[in-house]
Amino acid sequence: MGAGCSSSSSFSLSLSLPNHRPLSSSSSPLHHPKSPSNLIIISPSSNHTFYSHKSFPKSSMTSSPKSISDPHSIDSTLLQNLVHDSLVWSSLHGLVVGDRNVERSGLVPGVGLVHAPIALLPNSFPEVQWNQACELAPIFNELVDRVSLDGKFLQDTLSRTKKVDVFTSRLLDIHSQMLQIGKKEDIRLGLHRSDYMLDEKTNLLLQIELNTISCSFSGLGCLVSKLHRSLLSHYGKPLGLDSQKVPINDSASKFADALAKAWTEYSNPSAVVMVVVQPGERNMYDQHWLSSTLKERYPFSHNPELINTHNVTSIRKTLAEIDAQGKILSDGTLQVDGETVAVIYFRAGYAPTDYPSESEWKARLLIEESSAIKCPSISYHLTGTKKVQQELAKPSVLERFLENKDDIAKLRKCFAGLWSLDDSDAVKNAIQEPGAYVMKPQREGGGNNIYGDDVKETLLRLQKEGSEEEAAYILMQRIFPTVFPTVLVRDGICYKEHAVSELGIFSAYLRNKDMVISNEQCGYLMRTKVSSSNEGGVAAGFAVLDSLYLT
Amino acid sequence: MGAGCSSSSSFSLSLSLPNHRPLSSSSSPLHHPKSPSNLIIISPSSNHTFYSHKSFPKSSMTSSPKSISDPHSIDSTLLQNLVHDSLVWSSLHGLVVGDRNVERSGLVPGVGLVHAPIALLPNSFPEVQWNQACELAPIFNELVDRVSLDGKFLQDTLSRTKKVDVFTSRLLDIHSQMLQIGKKEDIRLGLHRSDYMLDEKTNLLLQIELNTISCSFSGLGCLVSKLHRSLLSHYGKPLGLDSQKVPINDSASKFADALAKAWTEYSNPSAVVMVVVQPGERNMYDQHWLSSTLKERYPFSHNPELINTHNVTSIRKTLAEIDAQGKILSDGTLQVDGETVAVIYFRAGYAPTDYPSESEWKARLLIEESSAIKCPSISYHLTGTKKVQQELAKPSVLERFLENKDDIAKLRKCFAGLWSLDDSDAVKNAIQEPGAYVMKPQREGGGNNIYGDDVKETLLRLQKEGSEEEAAYILMQRIFPTVFPTVLVRDGICYKEHAVSELGIFSAYLRNKDMVISNEQCGYLMRTKVSSSNEGGVAAGFAVLDSLYLT
Repeated sequence: MGAGCSSSSSFSLSLSLPNHRPLSSSSSPLHHPKSPSNLIIISPSSNHTFYSHKSFPKSSMTSSPKSISDPHSIDSTLLQNLVHDSLVWSSLHGLVVGDRNVERSGLVPGVGLVHAPIALLPNSFPEVQWNQACELAPIFNELVDRVSLDGKFLQDTLSRTKKVDVFTSRLLDIHSQMLQIGKKEDIRLGLHRSDYMLDEKTNLLLQIELNTISCSFSGLGCLVSKLHRSLLSHYGKPLGLDSQKVPINDSASKFADALAKAWTEYSNPSAVVMVVVQPGERNMYDQHWLSSTLKERYPFSHNPELINTHNVTSIRKTLAEIDAQGKILSDGTLQVDGETVAVIYFRAGYAPTDYPSESEWKARLLIEESSAIKCPSISYHLTGTKKVQQELAKPSVLERFLENKDDIAKLRKCFAGLWSLDDSDAVKNAIQEPGAYVMKPQREGGGNNIYGDDVKETLLRLQKEGSEEEAAYILMQRIFPTVFPTVLVRDGICYKEHAVSELGIFSAYLRNKDMVISNEQCGYLMRTKVSSSNEGGVAAGFAVLDSLYLT
Repeated sequence: MGAGCSSSSSFSLSLSLPNHRPLSSSSSPLHHPKSPSNLIIISPSSNHTFYSHKSFPKSSMTSSPKSISDPHSIDSTLLQNLVHDSLVWSSLHGLVVGDRNVERSGLVPGVGLVHAPIALLPNSFPEVQWNQACELAPIFNELVDRVSLDGKFLQDTLSRTKKVDVFTSRLLDIHSQMLQIGKKEDIRLGLHRSDYMLDEKTNLLLQIELNTISCSFSGLGCLVSKLHRSLLSHYGKPLGLDSQKVPINDSASKFADALAKAWTEYSNPSAVVMVVVQPGERNMYDQHWLSSTLKERYPFSHNPELINTHNVTSIRKTLAEIDAQGKILSDGTLQVDGETVAVIYFRAGYAPTDYPSESEWKARLLIEESSAIKCPSISYHLTGTKKVQQELAKPSVLERFLENKDDIAKLRKCFAGLWSLDDSDAVKNAIQEPGAYVMKPQREGGGNNIYGDDVKETLLRLQKEGSEEEAAYILMQRIFPTVFPTVLVRDGICYKEHAVSELGIFSAYLRNKDMVISNEQCGYLMRTKVSSSNEGGVAAGFAVLDSLYLT
């Protein structure tokens, strides 16, 4: 399980589709003379030159709608109307990010807004594997909690990684300190996202990674589902698609509910939720959706008298600000900038770049030492590392943490092949057939994975050098998802591309001592990326937000 | 009654607050050591430098909330939190416009978005005059309808204007042609906005103008009310304000309802609503809110079987496109770009600049000749001219159109002093006391009115020249509304200013022959502008969207 979603979090900043042709310039969209009929809905047009609206060719339509499996063959007028409507919908409904072309867009809300990059239509996903992914969510939640309690397992598993990865080493140091002082986290909150791909040959749902810190796009992901449902409810007939086949997605409100419930458990009505943020975050609206939902709603509360009395409000702080403004009171209470903090929700702190100085590490330690609820705690964070993911995939390891044999079987079924580099058979096989493997460094962020002949060369170099560096990597079976035609919209421009998809299932886990308060799936995020990208996991750039269409 | 809202429609494009100091640089906000207390809500903070969040000074708060009458004295931390939250809210809820600094922002939706310029908090308005303004809405609706049916009155009233104003002359030509062919509009739809100011000395609610074409901000106006209610529901205690005192504002859904009802009256389920737009409209989201609401809801229908069967969809066309793509079938049906048009909703066509060539005039004539429902018809449009407003203010004229003496008295009570330039007494008085008058040209758009000594000079010049040009103007009593301190937010920057407000009441009128289907007030728009502007009416630039707080 890889820690964090660094590439996801920087998704909106770095996203680009270089060398792909915009529809408006060079492509010649295939017309579909047999477009489906019964078009009662007539699409709103726009008057500008980019979308040269022509009337929909009613005369060329057949009488019974049929499914359009290739969105590249959608009639060009219909396509332009869909693009126009999706852009309008996004603008009106807050499906937006900060435009990287506008300097202030990461600093001041409300300026330099641009629609989030999206797939124009949802992409197909089989209902069986969708149900499977949903069913896995509470089991992974429980697994993370169990593993997090086994401090020795975490330290042992990551002991070799610690020697070669400074970042993991610093996290482990904090973890050790907590073990030494016997720190207990009675109230534990996890907001996770488990990412999967569907392997084309085997039709297996395989886990890419489990993110236990800073899972992004719970705020915007649900909006993409709503957008797609809205488009299909209006253009369903000509497209031959049914809006009901896009699963309902309540990711923002479910994550907000979980944060509110955790806040309630903390039982201090004047305390706040603190969102730990990166400076200059252009994906801020994804985060603001959670804070806004928190604020607009009253939390589900075990203390009914709190209802209609208190809002759950949030503050946003960088790690540097927390270091400067934070302190722990004698009873363990964390105060930042004069506010008592009930829950710390990390949307930063998952990557080495989030700790440019000792100040940030001091803040992380301060947080961990406090009695505030951490989402995640240092233990939850470490449980999401790739090395732990690989260790859990070893025979008999899951059995250390879970009792239920069915649950164990379900988890194991979604594990891709995962090997340590001290597994000489695996390394030998990977050198012989490098195309079947991905080398993943512990370091987070898209663009760091090693593919193809580079796998072979890197493995041979590491063997020759005999260095400890090999401990910084794991080997993973390379997953080959189905490549499909799709239409992507970015910066107001529509692109016809071939792409692959990755399904992320959000989940929340909240317990207070022996009482499990929440353990549920919390919506989903589909990310679709241009298949020319070599990335097997999340890719920095080259991707858009998507939803799924059950088949 | 002035025709159109040209300045309103171009509001978002030209708005600027030159020479006013941003809070962030030079101002020294007054701290309020006696800020109200019981602050359970703790404000979300932001982490960037512009909004340097400090904790709210709880210790300095008194125990009972009191009204803060001067928003310039709001505690600076609270102020920054309010600004931050208002910017986030606007971004998430579609309170946006196209950024004039981004070239494509008027051409492609979803790019170059920026929050709409807003007043941070609602501004006070007395409940008595608010009720009065609401009560006037259906009476003005009825008046417009009655006047529009009197073709001779319109032609006679505007006969002198026609000689000196080419634009009005062209409108009158179309009107004449319709009179000659005996064209009847059985189904008549009006979406009006009556603008008022409150005269400080007399405390009278006085009408500035009645807009009968292209009334802007019904889409965004209601969002500002929602924003203000949301802010007050969270910061009501420290501000000493009650969110319930901001009247509910359903302007977008009410206008959409009226359009949908008109569409239903047209009784052609496959017909569309056509929005006539300006090319490169940066205030497009204000318009998209109406189309979006139309599309998402099913219309209230006199034919229940239509419900759940048909959406009301809209297309957007410029006048030039209508000329190129439109035709009238033998039965009078208007077809544009292959679509049958049920309702034409003008968001362009109110100003001379909307008719750069004969093409646009041909489109306007085509529309008028068709059987589609025009919002507005040429008669409704002409009824909204300033010259007609002035004529209606003459003694005994209202009585030609309305029977109910109470209604007449109510209308007359809100009429400011209005005079023609052939009223020698009025001209004499205006030369003697120019500061008490405004000279308004028939030409639309802010910035065209004449104030102060210029009134005197212009009147003397016109007397000397003895030209027909005087027919291009009316004289209006200058209204002096209360100047109040306010906080405006534009382009992510907060300004402390002194300003005046203008209240616009939206209203809808729909009738089919003898049956009045709708005649109601449809929400409101408060516009607040910096008082250093000399404009008495709507001002191009220098203004923000606002809502009202009943006192």
